[in-house]
Amino acid sequence: MSLWGGRFKESIDKLVEDFTSSIKVDKKLYKYDIEGSIAHTKMLLKGNIINEEEAEKIITTLKEIEKDIRGDKVNLLRKEDIHMAIEEELIKRIGDIGKKLHTARSRNDQIALDERLYQRDKIKELSKLIFSFQEVLLEIAERNQEIIIPGFTHLQYAQPLLLAHYFLAYFWMFQRDRERLGDVYKRMNVMPLGSCALAGTSLPIDRKYGARLLGFSKISPNSLDAVSDRDYIIEFLASLSILMMHLSRLSEEIVIWVSPPFSFIEIRDAFTTGSSIMPQKKNPDVVELIRGKTGHIYGNLFSILTTMKALPLSYNRDMQEDKKPLFESVDIVKGSLKIFIQLLKNIKINKKRMREEAEKGFFAATDLTDYLVEKKVPFRNAHRIVGEIVKYCLEKGKSFKSLTLKEYQSFSSLFKGDIFDRLKLDRCVFSKESPGGTGKKALKEQIDLAKQVLKENFRKNNL
Amino acid sequence: MSLWGGRFKESIDKLVEDFTSSIKVDKKLYKYDIEGSIAHTKMLLKGNIINEEEAEKIITTLKEIEKDIRGDKVNLLRKEDIHMAIEEELIKRIGDIGKKLHTARSRNDQIALDERLYQRDKIKELSKLIFSFQEVLLEIAERNQEIIIPGFTHLQYAQPLLLAHYFLAYFWMFQRDRERLGDVYKRMNVMPLGSCALAGTSLPIDRKYGARLLGFSKISPNSLDAVSDRDYIIEFLASLSILMMHLSRLSEEIVIWVSPPFSFIEIRDAFTTGSSIMPQKKNPDVVELIRGKTGHIYGNLFSILTTMKALPLSYNRDMQEDKKPLFESVDIVKGSLKIFIQLLKNIKINKKRMREEAEKGFFAATDLTDYLVEKKVPFRNAHRIVGEIVKYCLEKGKSFKSLTLKEYQSFSSLFKGDIFDRLKLDRCVFSKESPGGTGKKALKEQIDLAKQVLKENFRKNNL
Amino acid sequence: MSLWGGRFKESIDKLVEDFTSSIKVDKKLYKYDIEGSIAHTKMLLKGNIINEEEAEKIITTLKEIEKDIRGDKVNLLRKEDIHMAIEEELIKRIGDIGKKLHTARSRNDQIALDERLYQRDKIKELSKLIFSFQEVLLEIAERNQEIIIPGFTHLQYAQPLLLAHYFLAYFWMFQRDRERLGDVYKRMNVMPLGSCALAGTSLPIDRKYGARLLGFSKISPNSLDAVSDRDYIIEFLASLSILMMHLSRLSEEIVIWVSPPFSFIEIRDAFTTGSSIMPQKKNPDVVELIRGKTGHIYGNLFSILTTMKALPLSYNRDMQEDKKPLFESVDIVKGSLKIFIQLLKNIKINKKRMREEAEKGFFAATDLTDYLVEKKVPFRNAHRIVGEIVKYCLEKGKSFKSLTLKEYQSFSSLFKGDIFDRLKLDRCVFSKESPGGTGKKALKEQIDLAKQVLKENFRKNNL
Amino acid sequence: MSLWGGRFKESIDKLVEDFTSSIKVDKKLYKYDIEGSIAHTKMLLKGNIINEEEAEKIITTLKEIEKDIRGDKVNLLRKEDIHMAIEEELIKRIGDIGKKLHTARSRNDQIALDERLYQRDKIKELSKLIFSFQEVLLEIAERNQEIIIPGFTHLQYAQPLLLAHYFLAYFWMFQRDRERLGDVYKRMNVMPLGSCALAGTSLPIDRKYGARLLGFSKISPNSLDAVSDRDYIIEFLASLSILMMHLSRLSEEIVIWVSPPFSFIEIRDAFTTGSSIMPQKKNPDVVELIRGKTGHIYGNLFSILTTMKALPLSYNRDMQEDKKPLFESVDIVKGSLKIFIQLLKNIKINKKRMREEAEKGFFAATDLTDYLVEKKVPFRNAHRIVGEIVKYCLEKGKSFKSLTLKEYQSFSSLFKGDIFDRLKLDRCVFSKESPGGTGKKALKEQIDLAKQVLKENFRKNNL
Repeated sequence: MSLWGGRFKESIDKLVEDFTSSIKVDKKLYKYDIEGSIAHTKMLLKGNIINEEEAEKIITTLKEIEKDIRGDKVNLLRKEDIHMAIEEELIKRIGDIGKKLHTARSRNDQIALDERLYQRDKIKELSKLIFSFQEVLLEIAERNQEIIIPGFTHLQYAQPLLLAHYFLAYFWMFQRDRERLGDVYKRMNVMPLGSCALAGTSLPIDRKYGARLLGFSKISPNSLDAVSDRDYIIEFLASLSILMMHLSRLSEEIVIWVSPPFSFIEIRDAFTTGSSIMPQKKNPDVVELIRGKTGHIYGNLFSILTTMKALPLSYNRDMQEDKKPLFESVDIVKGSLKIFIQLLKNIKINKKRMREEAEKGFFAATDLTDYLVEKKVPFRNAHRIVGEIVKYCLEKGKSFKSLTLKEYQSFSSLFKGDIFDRLKLDRCVFSKESPGGTGKKALKEQIDLAKQVLKENFRKNNL
Repeated sequence: MSLWGGRFKESIDKLVEDFTSSIKVDKKLYKYDIEGSIAHTKMLLKGNIINEEEAEKIITTLKEIEKDIRGDKVNLLRKEDIHMAIEEELIKRIGDIGKKLHTARSRNDQIALDERLYQRDKIKELSKLIFSFQEVLLEIAERNQEIIIPGFTHLQYAQPLLLAHYFLAYFWMFQRDRERLGDVYKRMNVMPLGSCALAGTSLPIDRKYGARLLGFSKISPNSLDAVSDRDYIIEFLASLSILMMHLSRLSEEIVIWVSPPFSFIEIRDAFTTGSSIMPQKKNPDVVELIRGKTGHIYGNLFSILTTMKALPLSYNRDMQEDKKPLFESVDIVKGSLKIFIQLLKNIKINKKRMREEAEKGFFAATDLTDYLVEKKVPFRNAHRIVGEIVKYCLEKGKSFKSLTLKEYQSFSSLFKGDIFDRLKLDRCVFSKESPGGTGKKALKEQIDLAKQVLKENFRKNNL
Repeated sequence: MSLWGGRFKESIDKLVEDFTSSIKVDKKLYKYDIEGSIAHTKMLLKGNIINEEEAEKIITTLKEIEKDIRGDKVNLLRKEDIHMAIEEELIKRIGDIGKKLHTARSRNDQIALDERLYQRDKIKELSKLIFSFQEVLLEIAERNQEIIIPGFTHLQYAQPLLLAHYFLAYFWMFQRDRERLGDVYKRMNVMPLGSCALAGTSLPIDRKYGARLLGFSKISPNSLDAVSDRDYIIEFLASLSILMMHLSRLSEEIVIWVSPPFSFIEIRDAFTTGSSIMPQKKNPDVVELIRGKTGHIYGNLFSILTTMKALPLSYNRDMQEDKKPLFESVDIVKGSLKIFIQLLKNIKINKKRMREEAEKGFFAATDLTDYLVEKKVPFRNAHRIVGEIVKYCLEKGKSFKSLTLKEYQSFSSLFKGDIFDRLKLDRCVFSKESPGGTGKKALKEQIDLAKQVLKENFRKNNL
Repeated sequence: MSLWGGRFKESIDKLVEDFTSSIKVDKKLYKYDIEGSIAHTKMLLKGNIINEEEAEKIITTLKEIEKDIRGDKVNLLRKEDIHMAIEEELIKRIGDIGKKLHTARSRNDQIALDERLYQRDKIKELSKLIFSFQEVLLEIAERNQEIIIPGFTHLQYAQPLLLAHYFLAYFWMFQRDRERLGDVYKRMNVMPLGSCALAGTSLPIDRKYGARLLGFSKISPNSLDAVSDRDYIIEFLASLSILMMHLSRLSEEIVIWVSPPFSFIEIRDAFTTGSSIMPQKKNPDVVELIRGKTGHIYGNLFSILTTMKALPLSYNRDMQEDKKPLFESVDIVKGSLKIFIQLLKNIKINKKRMREEAEKGFFAATDLTDYLVEKKVPFRNAHRIVGEIVKYCLEKGKSFKSLTLKEYQSFSSLFKGDIFDRLKLDRCVFSKESPGGTGKKALKEQIDLAKQVLKENFRKNNL
């Protein structure tokens, strides 16, 4: 029989019990629930609500229970939720003293606490993984500073780029992702415990003491708000959605780059899978799965947004449904980051193919335009002239390089012999030296900046 | 070692194996996978690709395997997916003969088949549950044809209604939900088997024979389409989203109606839960949870929509992620319907409170307006006159009933002594006899129509 | 001053008026609103609520107003909504007679009617566009029955296919999309008029007569349901989401196929755009935009699902927000289909490139496997053998074609001289003659089936 | 003819032009586009790419164009986008000098700049509105420190609360919403200009100088990232979604509180609307619309998340579709905040009804439990005893207050005469003095904290 059933005449219907029970999902929180209960016990002691002996008994037993749950020695099945499961186990082990634990507390502030402890922990883990991810990207960039790739817009060749520049673009995306998580952490690092059901309590508890024990920087300023809102989860899932959006883009990139007509990169066998019917296949399954899982993270964000829409204060049972999207998203993103880090270490770059393609087309069009601009031709005129040269080339089946100086001069007399130097692939790439550009020096500076950012973040524990 | 690993030099990395494995999710399909494999075996036999003895051996063993999986006697862990798990088990049991099963087949058409078999089954189960749900609504309506409730717009009292009319409104929503599922069923009842990886096969298989064996009305007309699309799942989840939207509305209704100031209905103890700190609480948790779970169904719909966006043909591994939202949604909706049916049987209607509130306010305003309209006052003028009477009442603290005939006549000389009859609650409700209205006869006809619809549907097996 | 302001003491605040007004959005419905009002007038006449002269006056004037709105001669600004705008205009033109129009009606059933009339119309337009889309796909398929393309799974080459087969895969997706719209149409073709605010009316109206006038197959069976639900809009937007998902896939396909390393197809200049800075660019903007707009349609579906979640019956003002997602989605999908049809007519197929790539890799692996299967080698063994041949080829830098018979026989003695015939691209494609396969005859049958389906649909007015 | 059309042989098809044009949407950016172009001109001058005279000419003319667009004197129709429209107008006005503006720039970095300038501006406006919103909430709280309301969980009465505490709960939610916007601002305050199409430029531009001119704290470190990502928009829309979630909750609260059985508050006539058919209605339309519009914001967030999923770098035309959700969301949230502020100023609190309901039920159950806890009864035992008292009361039709001391003592001998003091409503509320609780002193401290927070934020310009 459940602990709150005093007033009920009929026994709780089995179907209802199963439907409302959350133990299968929230058992994941046992560690945090016990951590919170230990701090709560100390608060009760400090307020003389329980005595030292009782406190010690409770704390020791809670630690034992944690160990036993970890060792799978406590039967959690058929309990309503993890809070009840642990409290009932405590009472089973130490009787009336255990019945004192839930003083000046409610499951409403308890779950708000557990979720925050869990989420804090997971943000730290995820931040570390993103950090490692960035390290790998930076390493690839640093190792491959000479490789040129055709840069794309609209999946068409636009201007050639350094491959390092490409990977660093993702470095900065993940940097912002990590900073976003840091902001979520900062904002949610507030202790709800002591809000009780919704109104606070008349019992003498020192919430700030509790906050210190649990490493919170603040206590929640309003008990009603503390037990009613889940904005911190939504903000977290929104940040993870953005992160997965970034991962889905890099995944798409890889899927395209390993496709035979591209063959820009190759994934080592260990990171691909084959086909049950076509033995020659070597599929980029890992990144496809990550790209596909983006749907789950988006879906989970919308799940919790929908659930929280238009709920009046304070706690409503709907909010129990916040855990599934939270836990599942954390697991998916963690798994995706972990394997993506390994995968990046297991790609082979096909430098030759990249350069081959980068040489194609009219990659130097912008450079020709800039050449004219340097000679004071208004940009739009220069742009038009180069457009005409391209059209001419297409009609004649020629390339920029195969045109004679005379042909160039038939479009503008400003073209001189030095024009051919501008058509060289390396020159074209290396000369884009505006800060943040793909030029050689600019890249060097970007790498230095990236290193410095990581170093500083590392000192601040990634948050 | 996996069955398709022939060409790989390195062994599959453990991390990758775990990440790409879907067995934990798709083991749910074992029954359908085996059902499909048996039909496939018969197709192979009919095409003389295998002989009768081989076919019998395979089929018998598959049936044994199914029984053993049901009895939890086959270790499915560490397999890549349910298809491989079953095929490997088959080969383990009967050797080379088992190795013939996957002829003229690919996991691409196999999963498309399994999912369709699963979904067909689940649509049938869900349709039956909705049918039962409707039966309960109809029964409540039929049993309570005299109870009057204030009808709401904007959660304000608008016009009084029969409570039966209220419940029947939901009856028709669920009728459409069931019809939607029927359409999904009809459109997806098409057999993909024989599409193989994407191109079909040169081996002689009789797909129509296979379709007959598996109860499909058609075979898929294009092998590429058959293995590439998941629109049938999306359509299904969209239908479930609409159904949950309806359930969320009824849930909200109940949450409000059991709130103390309303107290229109009461839920029996067995279907509520209490509070860990406030012993007097009796919460409508079940409907809150259903309302909250609406988020998951919406989220799952968007998960699969996102996953399928912009995937080129044919199969991409992203599509493996279709199963989680599908299975989870089915389980949630089934659970929600089951318990909601029971809950509806466990509400007590507080007839007195409903009537008390229905009597309040100016419920007869429309009737007064219609009274004047019947005397040929243009509607807008009648509407304005009644508006002025309401204003007068509010200022004087009076009700329609407490006004004298003289007072009525000061607003319009058309008011006569028979006006007071129009102010009676029952008359007001019972007189709305337009078809589909809340009038007594109209309600009777509506109930008859509802019964007839259920009867016809029942004959057609609910689909 | 608004028509319903009788009881209010303070004048409506300007800010509120602007915020609650929907005229900017719902003016789009004027045609349908007037169509509905005309039918309503005839219903009032049939019930003797107004007389013939009045009815004629109202109907004539409404038709004039429609013409004037179409000609932009009626100032709709500063009105609350399209219903009030038209009714006020009517009263302005014909005074007291006009004030009779709103008898036995409410804006609640009026908007439900208008939206259904609008949606019915738009479904017909969209169905026709999809039909045209299918015709173009079918035409391309029919015209290109000899072109071979590498078929993809995981964007890796799997088995070669007929290009026609590829386009027909999309044909069937759009066929289901059109059928889905037909089901939406069928289910929503029900007349809500006469439900009034929520309860029906005591005035004598013949709803079935009204339904016949407006071409509805049924009347709504419950007045409360009729004014409260928007499931027909959600179902419609869900169908459009699936359609856009299909369009996004074809768009992605085209983006990839026009990318330089692929160059499978080219889009005519008129259907591409250039770059403001890189004159050589030719971008597939149209399909990128369609792919991008998929987001809006998904978003609109989620918008209306969210809005409708957990609203108690009957009408709530939230529901006013249903129109933006509905109208916007219709416009986007119509625009996307229209231009996509034209675009498909403006692609050039690069047959040579396709065949070139189709020839690459180990496209005949399945055929080799089937060769062994035909010689009674169990499939899994055959699969393994071919896997070993692939590995051998990769190590030696050889292709299937360059291997000698002896080399083949070193893997299996069953290989004979006829093996080389099986390695031919055409043979490989044309032999996949299972129904729905990419074989020559199978394709022919598929084309015939597609034609027949279109013909039948055309006769049934596409619905 | 468009500016980039040099190489095209066919004229751009009209249909394509319309479909790809974004001017109808992005014209909203004209102010920001010109602001950016002026800064860009100064950068070009500083790099000696143009001379002083040219710079002055361009800047003066751009300012004139801005004034003319504001005055609706420039025909923007039939232009491709706002960038082209303004540049073409500039060239029309000053010829070749105008053609120099687009040097060292692309529309790719230009739109990234415009959107950031726009978003920065809008975040400031929104932050100010939230600030005002909080001020109103705080004022209501401060003015109503004595009013007691029944606190809810599950829409059931839980424990009585100060109404001020209720409103302050929302104060803190909006505080976090404002902080979230501040974080978005901080992270996006980075200048992309000078990234050009994707690679940077070889022309000598001083990006840091440009950043200073435009008030950016940093320049983007990677040109590819700068033109490819839209995470700042997604983060913004996610923050607005959370804000709308909060508004939807307060809206729901108000809808329920103005419902007749509650009648906790009343909205002044100016902020409600009536019914076209029921003259007595007074509907909370404004909050219903806000609750309904939540769907649009969620939908817009999902729209952009979908659009950005799996796009390879760098710019793809899909990204043009980012503006609709961005602009629309800003307008909706601004409108909602503005009117909600006014609405809160126009509610009348029905203090009597609130207290009446707060007195009902067993509101002091927690206090009785705590009474026993203070006498060292273990909480769970105390909880059970009080549960039994509630059951006893329900069976006997009694309330806590109507029980005799003797009756109390039959449940526990620890009950003494001072128990009746604990049953008083005020005592029950005022005694919850844990920090953040609803007690009198705790509330005072909360109000002080809220004031201090606003004061500090105000000094920091709300960001």
